[in-house]
Amino acid sequence: MPTVISATNQTPRAELELGPRIQEYGEKIFALIDAAESPSLFSKKGFYGTLMDWAMRDEHFKTQLFRFVDVLPMLTSSSEIARHLKEYLGEEQVNLSPALRLGLKAAGGASWLFGAGIKSQVTGMARQFMLGNDDKEIVATLRKSHEQGIAFTVDILGEAVVSEAEADQYAQRYLDLMDLLGREIARWHHPCKSNDSPRGPVPPLNVSVKISALYSQIHPTDPDTAIDRISARLRPILQRAKELGAFINFDMESYVLKDLTLRLFKTIFSEEQFATSPACGLAIQAYLRDCETDLEEIINWARARRRRITVRLVKGAYWDYETVISQQQHWPVPVFAHKAETDTNFEKLSLMLLENEDAVDAAFGTHNVRSIAHVLAQAERLGIERLNFEFQMLYGMADPIKEAVLQLGCRLREYCPVGELLPGMAYLVRRLLENTSNEGFLANKFAKGASRGELLKNPSSVAATPAFQSTLNHQPSTRFHNEPHTDFTVTAEREKMHGAVQEERRKLAQHHPLIIGNKPVATPEWLPSLNPANQKEVIGYAAQATVEHAEAALAAARRAQPAWGRTPAADRAELLEKVSFLMRRDKATLSALEVLEAGKNWPEADADVAEAIDFCSFYAAVMRDLGQPQRTQAVAGESNLQHWWPRGVGIIIAPWNFPLAILTGMTSAAVVAGNAVIMKPSDQTPVIGARLMDLFMEAGFPPGVVNLLTGPGGKVGAHLVGHPQIDFIAFTGSKEVGLKIWETAGRTAPGQVDLKKVVCEMGGKNCVIVDSDADLDEAVLGCIASAFGYQGQKCSALSRLIVVADNYSKFLERLIAAAASMRVGPAEVPGNVIGPVINRDAQKRIIDIIQSGKQEAKLAWQGTVPNDPIA
Amino acid sequence: MPTVISATNQTPRAELELGPRIQEYGEKIFALIDAAESPSLFSKKGFYGTLMDWAMRDEHFKTQLFRFVDVLPMLTSSSEIARHLKEYLGEEQVNLSPALRLGLKAAGGASWLFGAGIKSQVTGMARQFMLGNDDKEIVATLRKSHEQGIAFTVDILGEAVVSEAEADQYAQRYLDLMDLLGREIARWHHPCKSNDSPRGPVPPLNVSVKISALYSQIHPTDPDTAIDRISARLRPILQRAKELGAFINFDMESYVLKDLTLRLFKTIFSEEQFATSPACGLAIQAYLRDCETDLEEIINWARARRRRITVRLVKGAYWDYETVISQQQHWPVPVFAHKAETDTNFEKLSLMLLENEDAVDAAFGTHNVRSIAHVLAQAERLGIERLNFEFQMLYGMADPIKEAVLQLGCRLREYCPVGELLPGMAYLVRRLLENTSNEGFLANKFAKGASRGELLKNPSSVAATPAFQSTLNHQPSTRFHNEPHTDFTVTAEREKMHGAVQEERRKLAQHHPLIIGNKPVATPEWLPSLNPANQKEVIGYAAQATVEHAEAALAAARRAQPAWGRTPAADRAELLEKVSFLMRRDKATLSALEVLEAGKNWPEADADVAEAIDFCSFYAAVMRDLGQPQRTQAVAGESNLQHWWPRGVGIIIAPWNFPLAILTGMTSAAVVAGNAVIMKPSDQTPVIGARLMDLFMEAGFPPGVVNLLTGPGGKVGAHLVGHPQIDFIAFTGSKEVGLKIWETAGRTAPGQVDLKKVVCEMGGKNCVIVDSDADLDEAVLGCIASAFGYQGQKCSALSRLIVVADNYSKFLERLIAAAASMRVGPAEVPGNVIGPVINRDAQKRIIDIIQSGKQEAKLAWQGTVPNDPIA
Repeated sequence: MPTVISATNQTPRAELELGPRIQEYGEKIFALIDAAESPSLFSKKGFYGTLMDWAMRDEHFKTQLFRFVDVLPMLTSSSEIARHLKEYLGEEQVNLSPALRLGLKAAGGASWLFGAGIKSQVTGMARQFMLGNDDKEIVATLRKSHEQGIAFTVDILGEAVVSEAEADQYAQRYLDLMDLLGREIARWHHPCKSNDSPRGPVPPLNVSVKISALYSQIHPTDPDTAIDRISARLRPILQRAKELGAFINFDMESYVLKDLTLRLFKTIFSEEQFATSPACGLAIQAYLRDCETDLEEIINWARARRRRITVRLVKGAYWDYETVISQQQHWPVPVFAHKAETDTNFEKLSLMLLENEDAVDAAFGTHNVRSIAHVLAQAERLGIERLNFEFQMLYGMADPIKEAVLQLGCRLREYCPVGELLPGMAYLVRRLLENTSNEGFLANKFAKGASRGELLKNPSSVAATPAFQSTLNHQPSTRFHNEPHTDFTVTAEREKMHGAVQEERRKLAQHHPLIIGNKPVATPEWLPSLNPANQKEVIGYAAQATVEHAEAALAAARRAQPAWGRTPAADRAELLEKVSFLMRRDKATLSALEVLEAGKNWPEADADVAEAIDFCSFYAAVMRDLGQPQRTQAVAGESNLQHWWPRGVGIIIAPWNFPLAILTGMTSAAVVAGNAVIMKPSDQTPVIGARLMDLFMEAGFPPGVVNLLTGPGGKVGAHLVGHPQIDFIAFTGSKEVGLKIWETAGRTAPGQVDLKKVVCEMGGKNCVIVDSDADLDEAVLGCIASAFGYQGQKCSALSRLIVVADNYSKFLERLIAAAASMRVGPAEVPGNVIGPVINRDAQKRIIDIIQSGKQEAKLAWQGTVPNDPIA
Repeated sequence: MPTVISATNQTPRAELELGPRIQEYGEKIFALIDAAESPSLFSKKGFYGTLMDWAMRDEHFKTQLFRFVDVLPMLTSSSEIARHLKEYLGEEQVNLSPALRLGLKAAGGASWLFGAGIKSQVTGMARQFMLGNDDKEIVATLRKSHEQGIAFTVDILGEAVVSEAEADQYAQRYLDLMDLLGREIARWHHPCKSNDSPRGPVPPLNVSVKISALYSQIHPTDPDTAIDRISARLRPILQRAKELGAFINFDMESYVLKDLTLRLFKTIFSEEQFATSPACGLAIQAYLRDCETDLEEIINWARARRRRITVRLVKGAYWDYETVISQQQHWPVPVFAHKAETDTNFEKLSLMLLENEDAVDAAFGTHNVRSIAHVLAQAERLGIERLNFEFQMLYGMADPIKEAVLQLGCRLREYCPVGELLPGMAYLVRRLLENTSNEGFLANKFAKGASRGELLKNPSSVAATPAFQSTLNHQPSTRFHNEPHTDFTVTAEREKMHGAVQEERRKLAQHHPLIIGNKPVATPEWLPSLNPANQKEVIGYAAQATVEHAEAALAAARRAQPAWGRTPAADRAELLEKVSFLMRRDKATLSALEVLEAGKNWPEADADVAEAIDFCSFYAAVMRDLGQPQRTQAVAGESNLQHWWPRGVGIIIAPWNFPLAILTGMTSAAVVAGNAVIMKPSDQTPVIGARLMDLFMEAGFPPGVVNLLTGPGGKVGAHLVGHPQIDFIAFTGSKEVGLKIWETAGRTAPGQVDLKKVVCEMGGKNCVIVDSDADLDEAVLGCIASAFGYQGQKCSALSRLIVVADNYSKFLERLIAAAASMRVGPAEVPGNVIGPVINRDAQKRIIDIIQSGKQEAKLAWQGTVPNDPIA
């Protein structure tokens, strides 16, 4: 198998030799730039220039300005616009630096900024970076560039694709655009200079495709289906490209889609019909820590197939997003921490591309003069003619650099977004951020007057930083960290989960006794727990406690509590931490059991287990703090300390919808505080309850501190709630049962020594309001997630949706389409977002509510359940 | 009127001139000291020397050692002693410095220290400072000193005087001691050198009296009675002194007794029978900031009467106590902050005494060579023969200095405590502290080897510190400070309180309407509130609300709450702070009203008002903090803020036993949090409730936020507790009512939108355990205060007393005597500690309980109520 030529080991030496040459090229480019005019963006004149100037002077103003620009597309009336301006940029919101405040005053700033016509001003700004949506305008703009010797690639802007209908529309827009441009190019009299390579002509029609736009239901758990569905929408586009002799580039988006994009590229261009045509390529993002491997693989893939592809090397446009998301998830940050590292990596990969120019065509996407000069110097060193590769720059950005590159006899392609301007405002914000970034080349050069020396400095002279260190050390700690959710984009994680489901399935239909004083207790009756997706599958048989068993459990808890309550808080916390470690060990199998017994899809089951781990480690950490007596006040001659003492013995009554998390949360908080408890899991999920009991025992909780009592809640639970020896009740469940418990606990029974404490979390009817300035992409996806996550069986589920009239029709249309696009089926199948509801009763109740809804209002849309006998 | 000769303005100049002379005297004394042996105390040999050495090296060891010495008298068995040694001085308790740890090891320390015989070792230590209780030993010791030319004054050690029986015993012990010593002195062949003054012989029998030992019921509110009772026990002593030609000195104790002691001295020695005899004197403590005035007054008093008295100038022995107590009370600290200030003041007052030697005899009580040298130099300058004054030093301390002073031809008197050694251990601890103090002259000279230059340095060269700054600035502050209790030792405060009672009495028998929406509402029926000490006196007539009034109040609160809940927290806090300012303004009249309506004695009433002020300022401060949204956690890309929202409308049901504090506390917490409330004061104290309502209105609370509903709790209160529109209930009162409220609130009424929150503080049965190592002085006083404070009508009152058998008989005897000594009568009379119980029902219930107690157990003692028709 052929192997990529690696430049890794020779770069440092080569760099030493090339340093002066890179500086020379850089100076040459700067000379050309300085001869040209400063780009209008940085002229500090006019609306845009002034705003950019302010934004660079004041970070907070910048943030608020860009937030305003982001929301602007949704605002329809000028009073709304004025209100939002005031809200985002009013003096109280923007804590302006004194200098900026002075500047604003001098310019009569606010009144000018807050005047009329802001929307058209901002639209004007957007027009600088986008081609718009008018066919005539698009072709006119491209023709003008063509005449200047600049080639293009087009990309279609737009909303997030929230439904299959929208994905269909998006695919169609590509076809339409290709037809339009095909007709246009046919009219051009001469080829574009920039499409003239020594290896032969380059296709003039170059289209950049975002694969996320071609399927609305991409889920990390199920890349196979995503590949299938995207391929289905891609094939007509590739077919048309073949017909038109067009070039198709796969853009790179966020990291979560990267492996999918690479796999799709290799898969679809291996299909016989596309094995040699159309011409194709893809982007590689130099800011990714793992992109070198990707580039090597793609070069090897191309060389092995003797198919020339183009690699567009870019730095990457989602740095903030990737950083924030990975930190939120406690996942390793996939991007380099510092811009200089990315720039260094860009140079390394540039060299790799040049060294492998036998197999791949290189397209260098950068506005950075140092990066460009480095490419030119390396190509010169390697004896590669500079028409063998091309530079790519964004439409509307860095015009003097484009001019300079052209004057140096290089090929240049502009990346041209087309589409409606206002919905494309997110793209505008990205460009504005780039133009005002402290680390951006353009701002440093044109706005901040950095010296040529600084701008041409070798980025590798800045020390690299270590890869992201996980803050999870799995050690007892008073600092709490959320347990990361499983990253199902990682193949090994998906395989582990598949294996865990199989493993759990092998353990079905066992009998799960009561546990009293850490001893199993069998009962005369046993209740089967069924897979809600397949009622013929028995997950397990749960013991059915009688009142006598309840008394025995209570006696065991009462015996255990005094010693447990006197056990040092740190020791109790340590045992609970041990439970969290065991849960982490068993994470996949616990999730798999939830999939089978509760009908949760993979990520929901995984999140529930993570939350259970969180409860254990959080309450342990809190107890370690609370366990230290706290000085409450400093009064001379007094020693005032606050100690926390346990309440005694409690009963924990948990629901089935977060079958592990809530049971664990209520139990672990109680026991770590020194109480003894009787766990009463839901009748729907007793096997998960039994599994949790196993973990408490394995961790080493003393007999009687945690007891497991499965059985009829109405009888056994009620008996304990009213029992004079129960000190507290922790309940999560329905309002009806909760209020009954509250009322029962209010009565002081004979022999009861203290008031009963009730922690009672009951149902909710949550509403979402979609305001007139809502980002509908986010609003649709948020509502779908809230309303239909775990089949809507959460107390926090969206159950009333209020949409302000302005957006009503459009929002409803998109929401229905998005709902209709969701995949319904057994939760164990990855990619099935909607699984079964918990049991037949729940299903019937829901169907009844739909029926009565139909009487009271107009049905907007109703889905269907595949293969369900009663649906 | 003759005026004291003041040295104030001439001291600095005189000091400049005298400096070298003081140094010369100092050097002379040091030469004499160094010629003598180092005092055994600091020899670092033997048990005592080693302990002192360790104590000076390690502050924590010192504290624990002295605590052990303090408790030792109570320990009867050696196993108990061993256990306490381990507890106080075990390694975990005493975090020994490494150096000391090493030293202990080298000396085989612990085993030697923890060995047997510790009690006799410590007794031996005590014997160094006290003369013991054996008549023969006492006279033998005094005779020995007499032979050495050292005069004496005797003082009787002993427990705190907790009862009148003990005060009688104490007075008798003085008489016995005087008889003993009178007989002894009669046998001496020659007068003591130190009693030979140029003005004539000084009485050889010199007795120091602690006036606190002569009356058990000294209360700041009632110095008149204290003067009467102490005088009654003093007269036989003074009479005997006359007969024996003895000298009587009044010792000075803590600051709270100072004015009383001065007044007593002037009063009793103005009585005709004591106007010229016996010889007398008193102590002045130089560490008191106000002692100069006292000294001037006493000199003037003596000069005016042409009666020579002796002033014993000391530095003062209660510095730590005075500092801690005044800081606890937020009162000005009466003592100088720095030792050097006290030493400077001592010199100033020394000079004043010498300059007024025409009127008073001076006795300089000091072990400080600098202070002694200063006296000698000043006397020389003024041409005063040095036999015209005397030095006084403590028995068992500073022997080489005594020797030196005698060799210089001065008169010397030893202060000799007599009495049982073990009960006098507190005196031993004071001496040990003095010997090991960082600032003490003796430790610096004999243990730490300070240079003569340091030891003779002019103390005024150390800058004086400003007087104590009160931390109360009466400004809104997020830092909370307790409101100081009124210092009734201050005459003006007592007069203010007398005036306030009279003022309140002028306002009796008014009608107090309901207040709904800040409007008065009259009712058909009115209930009189009676003075519990005089049921014929109507404090006021309280409106009696009906259910319709309750509904109206609820409606007003519901109307007011939404706007109030949205009022910024800081604004709500400010209004509450205003209430606290108004209460501070009205402190005396509010207290006076409590005296009349609730039967609280002065300090209890004052404390209740202070607590009400505290509640307002504390909750306001807390709300200022809580009103700021709190960031709960730092998750990338998220903004997590915690806001506190009001619950709605509540009812506040308060008891009569803290008629202002608890009503204010429950109300102010609720309203500052944004709730609206209906205040339901107790039927026993409605006038206080009405007064509080007035303050809320005067502060500017909007209509409906606080409403006042007096009337039948069983009907109106119960109606509101169960009302669906009541969101919360704050209740303090009986268990029966509390449990009923708890149960009612547990039922969710139709139309109720949220669960009712109940804050329910109910009765208590508190117990005190008197352990075998308890300090019985403290235990008796603590039990008396806890059991009988406000006639025992507090939830925290001691109601079960458990005494470990070792102490039972002695403790019970002292407790009964102490209880029998308490003054019973109307609370408005200052000094009446026991006032009336709240009403006839309460009285009957208590009498019934005593009756049934007599059936079940043996009555230990029963008091009587003066002038009560049914008692």
